[in-house]
Amino acid sequence: MNRRFERVAVVGAGLVGAGWAIVFARAGQSVSIYDAQPAIRASVMDWIRDSLNEMERCGLTRDVPSILARITVSDSLEDAVAEADYVQESVFERVDVKHRISLAIGAAIRADAIVGSSSSGIPASEFTGDVQRRERFIIAHPVNPPHLIPLVELVPSPWTDPSIAPLLRDFMESVGQKPIVLSREINGFVLNRLQGALLNEAWALFDAGVASAADIDRTVSEGLGMRWSFMGPFETIDLNAPGGVADYAERLGPLYHSIAMDRRHPAQWHPDLIERVAAERRQALPLEDLASRCDWRDKMLMMLAAHRTMNQSDDSEDA
Amino acid sequence: MNRRFERVAVVGAGLVGAGWAIVFARAGQSVSIYDAQPAIRASVMDWIRDSLNEMERCGLTRDVPSILARITVSDSLEDAVAEADYVQESVFERVDVKHRISLAIGAAIRADAIVGSSSSGIPASEFTGDVQRRERFIIAHPVNPPHLIPLVELVPSPWTDPSIAPLLRDFMESVGQKPIVLSREINGFVLNRLQGALLNEAWALFDAGVASAADIDRTVSEGLGMRWSFMGPFETIDLNAPGGVADYAERLGPLYHSIAMDRRHPAQWHPDLIERVAAERRQALPLEDLASRCDWRDKMLMMLAAHRTMNQSDDSEDA
Repeated sequence: MNRRFERVAVVGAGLVGAGWAIVFARAGQSVSIYDAQPAIRASVMDWIRDSLNEMERCGLTRDVPSILARITVSDSLEDAVAEADYVQESVFERVDVKHRISLAIGAAIRADAIVGSSSSGIPASEFTGDVQRRERFIIAHPVNPPHLIPLVELVPSPWTDPSIAPLLRDFMESVGQKPIVLSREINGFVLNRLQGALLNEAWALFDAGVASAADIDRTVSEGLGMRWSFMGPFETIDLNAPGGVADYAERLGPLYHSIAMDRRHPAQWHPDLIERVAAERRQALPLEDLASRCDWRDKMLMMLAAHRTMNQSDDSEDA
Repeated sequence: MNRRFERVAVVGAGLVGAGWAIVFARAGQSVSIYDAQPAIRASVMDWIRDSLNEMERCGLTRDVPSILARITVSDSLEDAVAEADYVQESVFERVDVKHRISLAIGAAIRADAIVGSSSSGIPASEFTGDVQRRERFIIAHPVNPPHLIPLVELVPSPWTDPSIAPLLRDFMESVGQKPIVLSREINGFVLNRLQGALLNEAWALFDAGVASAADIDRTVSEGLGMRWSFMGPFETIDLNAPGGVADYAERLGPLYHSIAMDRRHPAQWHPDLIERVAAERRQALPLEDLASRCDWRDKMLMMLAAHRTMNQSDDSEDA
């Protein structure tokens, strides 16, 4: 890295922001956290401590006190970001909210700071057009929670300085995240476009009565998802034909094209369909058990992250 | 289960058939294997022994000698299937090959036997129409390798006896697989339709220059795939909104619909595109390293299977 990052500011300290604070602090960065709500400022360190302790029990971190010592909570946005090399903004996902905070951040940062927004779908061009130092802003979209799922999508706006994406990519790698860089803004970015394509097919199959939601879920959780937890869709098919991806594409491309042709007239997820999917889900998991199932999911993610740490995927081909 | 399965025949002993033999034998079934090629008949037990030994080293099996003792290789198809309660057919995926073997199997089985084909895409109606006892035939499509990835798609043909799918579902559960049941034949079944939807979007994003194949892969392997390795797409979104899937669908349905609308004119994976994807893959992984990367994948799957066994997913909501 030809530029040193040492101080990070986290703006917005909900679950996403607090997870980011863990990411940066465990990598050795000094982290200052700001949230507009005093109640969140008062409680975020407890949440971070609890999470780090649980991660330590799973073998995912050590020396929790040192990590905690690198994090401070700031009562003012300006104080939090003034000296930061990098600002990770994770406020509520609505254009007006993103716009307001970006105006404040742009006015308070150093000229050479970089600002990444955790926006999962709103592109930076929709809220940074009239922001000071708008060329320093970019999307840095994590998957929730960022301290357990390493992917980060970097999406430059049309006016983002072209040097920023490669710089931030290096920085994200250096703190243990797995960044990707999009060449330009696109609706849904890459992650939600891939998820959406699979979801749209899942909803259509359910709507057509081909299989239950539970069986469609099982197809992924007991089938496709196992491979996809350590290799992507291109590598998966590359390894699924003796001659690699070209061989695979030649043989199976027509099948996949015919599947796409079946979906040329995409339907909305209409209210009746949503009701039927929701009815099956609520039968499987009553709404009052949703929160505890989320805890289960986070525990599963933590154990999977620990498994991945112990059995490092040989990433060398990506070098 | 209101019907006992004790004897299984495996017809076709390539990687898929041999994996199936492990599935059934480790669950206590007596397994007879037949393959038309004498060389495969001569070597399959060595492959099975090696695989079981490696599984034992990963903590996935124990008492390998007992498992091996339950497997015999038969020199005749008729001998292999004559007494079988269940026949798993895994011959080469071509209609004429499937048809020929199904004729032979149909003529040799007991009247109450069930025959499942490992076909990954050809529906049973295309090769069982004139087969004896065709009402006993169904698709039982595994993911490769079946002894490490538990999903099985059961797809009845129009003339499959309606009692077969539920019976086979119970049997597959009892041997530790995770079956799903399709209500009818559909192009690509469920698994390859879901995979295809994601693949089609991946190819389109690459074609548009939005991201590299490596970055698209990373979006799945370091992001989406982690959750999908233990819960499906419906449960994932159900847990991603305070009010569950209905809440999520109301808020994000329009985004996903707009993504589908972008793909109303699906392009083939055209030769130039295939060449560019293949060029990037061959840069990352030369063709001569493909085989060793496949070994890596199988090792990763084995370690993931061991991780899943040790940290049993709480499947209770599926009960």
